[in-house]
Amino acid sequence: MSSTAGQVIRCKAAVAWEAGKPLVIEEVEVAPPQVNEVRLKILFTSLCHTDVYFWEAKGQSPLFPRIFGHEASGIVESVGPGVTDLQPGDHVLPVFTGECKECRHCKSEESNMCDLLRINTDRGHMLADGQSRFSIDGKPIHHFLGTSTFSEYTVVHVGCLAKINPAAPLDKVCVLSCGISTGLGATLNVAKPKRGQSVAIFGLGAVGLAAAEGARISGASRIIGVDLNPNRFEEAKKFGVTEFVNPKDYDKPVQQVIADMTDGGVDRSVECTGSIQAMISAFECVHDGWGVAVLVGVPSKDDSFKTHPMNLLNERTLKGTFFGNYKPRSDLPSVVEMYMKKELEVEKFITHYVSFSEINKAFDYMMKGESLRCIISMEG
Amino acid sequence: MSSTAGQVIRCKAAVAWEAGKPLVIEEVEVAPPQVNEVRLKILFTSLCHTDVYFWEAKGQSPLFPRIFGHEASGIVESVGPGVTDLQPGDHVLPVFTGECKECRHCKSEESNMCDLLRINTDRGHMLADGQSRFSIDGKPIHHFLGTSTFSEYTVVHVGCLAKINPAAPLDKVCVLSCGISTGLGATLNVAKPKRGQSVAIFGLGAVGLAAAEGARISGASRIIGVDLNPNRFEEAKKFGVTEFVNPKDYDKPVQQVIADMTDGGVDRSVECTGSIQAMISAFECVHDGWGVAVLVGVPSKDDSFKTHPMNLLNERTLKGTFFGNYKPRSDLPSVVEMYMKKELEVEKFITHYVSFSEINKAFDYMMKGESLRCIISMEG
Ligand SMILES: NC(=O)c1ccc[n+]([C@@H]2O[C@H](COP(=O)([O-])OP(=O)(O)OC[C@H]3O[C@@H](n4cnc5c(N)ncnc54)[C@H](O)[C@@H]3O)[C@@H](O)[C@H]2O)c1
Ligand SMILES: NC(=O)c1ccc[n+]([C@@H]2O[C@H](COP(=O)([O-])OP(=O)(O)OC[C@H]3O[C@@H](n4cnc5c(N)ncnc54)[C@H](O)[C@@H]3O)[C@@H](O)[C@H]2O)c1
Ligand SMILES: [Zn+2]
Ligand SMILES: [Zn+2]
Ligand SMILES: [Zn+2]
Ligand SMILES: [Zn+2]
Repeated sequence: MSSTAGQVIRCKAAVAWEAGKPLVIEEVEVAPPQVNEVRLKILFTSLCHTDVYFWEAKGQSPLFPRIFGHEASGIVESVGPGVTDLQPGDHVLPVFTGECKECRHCKSEESNMCDLLRINTDRGHMLADGQSRFSIDGKPIHHFLGTSTFSEYTVVHVGCLAKINPAAPLDKVCVLSCGISTGLGATLNVAKPKRGQSVAIFGLGAVGLAAAEGARISGASRIIGVDLNPNRFEEAKKFGVTEFVNPKDYDKPVQQVIADMTDGGVDRSVECTGSIQAMISAFECVHDGWGVAVLVGVPSKDDSFKTHPMNLLNERTLKGTFFGNYKPRSDLPSVVEMYMKKELEVEKFITHYVSFSEINKAFDYMMKGESLRCIISMEG
Repeated sequence: MSSTAGQVIRCKAAVAWEAGKPLVIEEVEVAPPQVNEVRLKILFTSLCHTDVYFWEAKGQSPLFPRIFGHEASGIVESVGPGVTDLQPGDHVLPVFTGECKECRHCKSEESNMCDLLRINTDRGHMLADGQSRFSIDGKPIHHFLGTSTFSEYTVVHVGCLAKINPAAPLDKVCVLSCGISTGLGATLNVAKPKRGQSVAIFGLGAVGLAAAEGARISGASRIIGVDLNPNRFEEAKKFGVTEFVNPKDYDKPVQQVIADMTDGGVDRSVECTGSIQAMISAFECVHDGWGVAVLVGVPSKDDSFKTHPMNLLNERTLKGTFFGNYKPRSDLPSVVEMYMKKELEVEKFITHYVSFSEINKAFDYMMKGESLRCIISMEG
């Protein structure tokens, strides 16, 4: 038992007081974990577009003050009642979506969309009692995605924590708790290219590059990167992308360009843009008979996916994935193992390091499109 | 060697002289098979909507005179040069699409859309020489789907013939060469329900009922039949359909009705209507996380499949199939074996029998919606 167990912990957190305004490092109080909850010390966290998106709060009802952050690594400080899977000292990755292990989704081999702990971007409190575990002078601060990792200590539902190999370097594997696993799993778990097959990746941000990494690991013969931003192409070479297509360079639709390059279409495609046009192209560029297209990008509310049904009757498959179809607790530890065995290369996703006090720099890097992943060290 | 090998055979065929006009039984000349072709004696043939559709010739450029027919069983009379897989006396099912065994599709485990022999509804001649094997007084008669089974003798590419167990009753298994295998395979090969899962079938014609038969064979716990025509429901009970939904009986969309019946959606759905609205509903009625929807129906040229991409990101799968993903030569013999082992029930699809001279009656039964399959006996 740590000496802080059961006590309120006072520590530093980066609080977002208002939409779009720089985060402020504050001293916050972190209450002890309640039923099925775990309090952990965050060692490293990284920044993902989803943090920026909800911090900007342009499309949603704003919820402030809030502690953002959902890609991270940490060590269990104490556990609440009912927690038997984890104990103080365990190394964990917090995840924005969970696995209760009891609902129909958790019991299905195919789904990771837990009924109880599925991502909820609107919720600012903990499930156990509808309260926040964070406060400043008694005034509650909202949670984000059940993780709120921009804090030295945070409280997370046990179902949203993956227990990982304690030998894994936490400053690297922290990036596996969201975008990288999403892209990787989209290829490895859903598109499942066979050795020697061709794969098109739409969108060469962190998620798309992770999808490309999945294609490289699968032994794809050709990895065709598609992006509207040619600046992405140079970096993408490190990820095994062998050919590049910028839809803006052609008069014909990009699905036609790809079909022409590949004698009728690629074997697999993975869409990581969030653009509905890219989703349709990603589907229509796969080969008839066996092609599989996987959608990852989060679309706008009013988007409509449209295609002629004959594109389906010609034996194409269209799938979507959430978090790369990984179940957070059951599957994420093995993704960390892939890294430990040097099958998966994580370092190349990490373009920047900053200390916690400089967290707003991480936002700048991302918004300028300079970073893939910026690691924020809580110690520094 | 049969005594007719290498000779022109004079025999009876039902010739369609004009769009929509009753077929006329004529004496025709059937030329010997050319390279990679086989001439066969048809024993039984049945009528499928596709024959009626091209005979009515409302949507396409008409090709007359023509010999229709593509669901049939027969016995090899003689083979042309290069044919080594078949010999006179073999029992075969002719198929409207083929398997060359050499193209990328034939070599893929997943596809049955052979580059060389894929269905071609516009072609009225044989591939070897661009000529017809049928003539009357030297005037050629067009082929249909490379099968033209409304003739006592016909010539078919060896790649469009499945060699079957000679013990199989040809008056029954003839129906396995098109619609029944299409629906059956859509469920068994593509939707692949697990034992105990729920399956919705849209459209309870012969194809949909065969899809239901596939669900029954798979051990589905619930088989929900959806049709706009309530007359279909009584017959469907024989096919293991346990519940019925007529979209016309509800104010809410049928996908919502099904979601409400099944705690969030069925595990699998198979669309066998050709209606774009049914295709969309069939997709949207499957459960998130693991649901798989399979499209079978042939849509109109201008149809557009539309859905919100979030329905895909919630881990649904959308697939289409052609001929139930069966490879004609490799897989059809085992469908016949399923019938021989009494796993697959074929008799219940056969609602009428007529003799060849009464072939126009088969058209009447189908157009009035009275028949599922009407067997035409060439001998009688
Ligand atoms: N499904 C999930 O579980 C999950 C998890 C994390 C992220 N995401 C989503 O994945 C997507 C990618 O995330 P990211 O962090 O890599 O984003 P990013 O913004 O870094 O990268 C997206 C890339 O797509 C490119 N792009 C945009 N429109 C395009 C088009 N029409 N054609 C080709 N390229 C186009 C952009 O130029 C950019 O390079 C986002 O939509 C994000 O919301 C999904
Ligand atoms: N993909 C293939 O390889 C293949 C092969 C053969 C047939 N088909 C297609 O399969 C489909 C079914 O063939 P069939 O011979 O059984 O046809 P059918 O006309 O006998 O049956 C279709 C049924 O669908 C019902 N229906 C129509 N619209 C509907 C809707 N919106 N909702 C619910 N039910 C609806 C009709 O009432 C009818 O009972 C056709 O489109 C046919 O072209 C495809
Ligand atoms: Zn669950
Ligand atoms: Zn994220
Ligand atoms: Zn072929
Ligand atoms: Zn048919």
